Amino acid sequence: MTAPLHDERRTSSGARLPDTQQGMRRRNLSRVMHTVAAHGPLSRAAVASHIGLTRAAVSTLVDELIRSGLLDELGPERPGRVGRPGSALAVSARGPVGIGAEVGVDHLAACAVDLRGEVRARVTRPAPNRGRSPVPVLEELMLLVEQVSAEARAAGLTPAGLAVAVPGLVARGTRTVVRAPNLGWHGIDLGRLVSTEMPLAVDNEANFGALAELWLGEETPDDFLHVSAEIGIGAALVVDGQVLRGTHGFAGELGHVPVRPNGPACPCGGHGCLEQYAGEEAVLRVAGLDPGAERSELLAERAAAGDAAVRRALRGAGEALGIALTGAVNLLDPQAVVLGGALSRLAPWLLPALEHELTDRTAGRACGVTVSGLGPDGPLLGAAHSVARAVLDDPVGVSAGAGAGPGR
Amino acid sequence: MTAPLHDERRTSSGARLPDTQQGMRRRNLSRVMHTVAAHGPLSRAAVASHIGLTRAAVSTLVDELIRSGLLDELGPERPGRVGRPGSALAVSARGPVGIGAEVGVDHLAACAVDLRGEVRARVTRPAPNRGRSPVPVLEELMLLVEQVSAEARAAGLTPAGLAVAVPGLVARGTRTVVRAPNLGWHGIDLGRLVSTEMPLAVDNEANFGALAELWLGEETPDDFLHVSAEIGIGAALVVDGQVLRGTHGFAGELGHVPVRPNGPACPCGGHGCLEQYAGEEAVLRVAGLDPGAERSELLAERAAAGDAAVRRALRGAGEALGIALTGAVNLLDPQAVVLGGALSRLAPWLLPALEHELTDRTAGRACGVTVSGLGPDGPLLGAAHSVARAVLDDPVGVSAGAGAGPGR
Repeated sequence: MTAPLHDERRTSSGARLPDTQQGMRRRNLSRVMHTVAAHGPLSRAAVASHIGLTRAAVSTLVDELIRSGLLDELGPERPGRVGRPGSALAVSARGPVGIGAEVGVDHLAACAVDLRGEVRARVTRPAPNRGRSPVPVLEELMLLVEQVSAEARAAGLTPAGLAVAVPGLVARGTRTVVRAPNLGWHGIDLGRLVSTEMPLAVDNEANFGALAELWLGEETPDDFLHVSAEIGIGAALVVDGQVLRGTHGFAGELGHVPVRPNGPACPCGGHGCLEQYAGEEAVLRVAGLDPGAERSELLAERAAAGDAAVRRALRGAGEALGIALTGAVNLLDPQAVVLGGALSRLAPWLLPALEHELTDRTAGRACGVTVSGLGPDGPLLGAAHSVARAVLDDPVGVSAGAGAGPGR
Repeated sequence: MTAPLHDERRTSSGARLPDTQQGMRRRNLSRVMHTVAAHGPLSRAAVASHIGLTRAAVSTLVDELIRSGLLDELGPERPGRVGRPGSALAVSARGPVGIGAEVGVDHLAACAVDLRGEVRARVTRPAPNRGRSPVPVLEELMLLVEQVSAEARAAGLTPAGLAVAVPGLVARGTRTVVRAPNLGWHGIDLGRLVSTEMPLAVDNEANFGALAELWLGEETPDDFLHVSAEIGIGAALVVDGQVLRGTHGFAGELGHVPVRPNGPACPCGGHGCLEQYAGEEAVLRVAGLDPGAERSELLAERAAAGDAAVRRALRGAGEALGIALTGAVNLLDPQAVVLGGALSRLAPWLLPALEHELTDRTAGRACGVTVSGLGPDGPLLGAAHSVARAVLDDPVGVSAGAGAGPGR
């Protein structure tokens, strides 16, 4: 057997392109930006010691970032000290912001997040988007985007890119919503329908929700499975701080993992999928409520009030979640499972049955289940932060107008 | 909401340490080695054009690799040409080899693979390892390792490291077999029990099998789910050419994905796990054969001879595999599912039911199912190649005695 060791694309040594001085400079510019965003204001010397480069090297990088309007010099630091005073560096107060937007089944939202991670503007509006045509939905969304962008500009900030979270599958590396069953959208290319001068990225709400958890959650590990629900049930696996997207961008379809293979038919073509037991519609029906009229907020209210039928329905949903998650934990071995979105509100009634199934079936190998503190805000925040982080990750590329949007 | 953008560990820009000239040099040494191993003999100029560096830069790198004994200069190339003749470079015929070894439930094996991917020595021996204590098993294994190492040395090659494939879970980043139920091993640290001067790596056979498929398979994509079986059923997900290991190193436990949640109890603690339907013991029992006495080779023979009970049993196993893989495909969205190990022999009788379930349940989103051409050789070859590739990936590090073994 010969000839197998060669494929250069597959070297495990990291980057796939030849290392160049230029690539190294760009990565080091990113390290300086991340360090100042995280720990600033900092002197050049402090930045140098943080990232392990010489002060001379850091000074060159810092000068370029100041010229690009990404860092500000705050003036002499500790002026009483001997020698040339160091000047404290901070992320520019007039720099880029990331714009995030969300198309929900029942609402639209937009926000602006600066390079330090602060939300600088935000707006949410109820909107009955189920079955509505994409054009008016996206026009209405862009009014909200304009509103938060204008607020950001009024504060001296520059929108650097727009990321849109949608409740559906987005083909990897594109801006096309392949399938958003709860909106009724199929094959909708937001790149053509959204009119903006900003770089535009589009992703599944479950992926942005998981990234928000990774970046904003308290003590969130680098490897976890994030499970969220609005109407359907989605999930995203984060591995080493990156969302696992799958070949077509469709990974994370926990809602269509078979729970009982001979169970009820699912619109996906399967039988007994998790959504048939733990999706909003299924839970409302089991609870004796009308899925056409009621929504999941009601489930939390009624369960809290002690409604036995609702609690029983949620127990059944938790059981089904526990079975599907047993499969996921065996396949993926995540450090934790995090319940986000609407599931976080329902956690008190879902968790006992869920954990019982998962712990029993995995005999102590179970990973812990935690509840997100972000609740339904995750996808919107994740979208805006993904743009702000893209600036930090490649400050020169972005300041030249490229590359907003989520990673691989 | 503040302070989220900073964590330097999470920059998506790639490497986690500051870029240095030294790191860049090491990565470029690797590119030269991979290029010559893949396409050699090559002149320095050809290497330079392959990897996009200047000829001067490549010459410096090549000189270091020649000094380290990794590349050979074959003498003047096309001596009739005008100007200074280029000298063709080739991977050294007297360079390092990777040693792979395998502990199977019924056999032991070892082999040596050189940097061009050629098997230079190989030995396999039947061994009834079920329930046998690790010490004699590993002593016997090391006799085989010594045998192939001696053969390699006699050919002028130098064993660079040893990688051992085991039929069980190995804790990530360690050499400890946490659990190998079919051997009866629990918490066995091969780092303590294996006596060798070589760098030693230990991993699950399913992971090495998947890597062999990645490196040696024909047209294997970079993203696939490799499913294999000896006695149990294991799997490994390859993403972008890397095995997804999971937090503890336990990812890929397809055999314990629930297929029918109220099905028979499984030793893992679960109920209705895939192994209860498609594991060797279950299939033998359903076929009316004695799992204590018979083995899976017999299943293929009998199925080929038209034995109706065996074919029915394999159809049931294929169905269960299809249900478990529906969950895996929904979660992971791989480009392909590859059946390896003993499953490749049984594929003709498993595949129809498997594909029927998977295609029906995923409604056209199904990824294709292919059968490995490596059969039961995968884990052993994957182990040896992982050592050889580690040399190519970091030639200077390895020539200094470090770093054999699989990547993350």
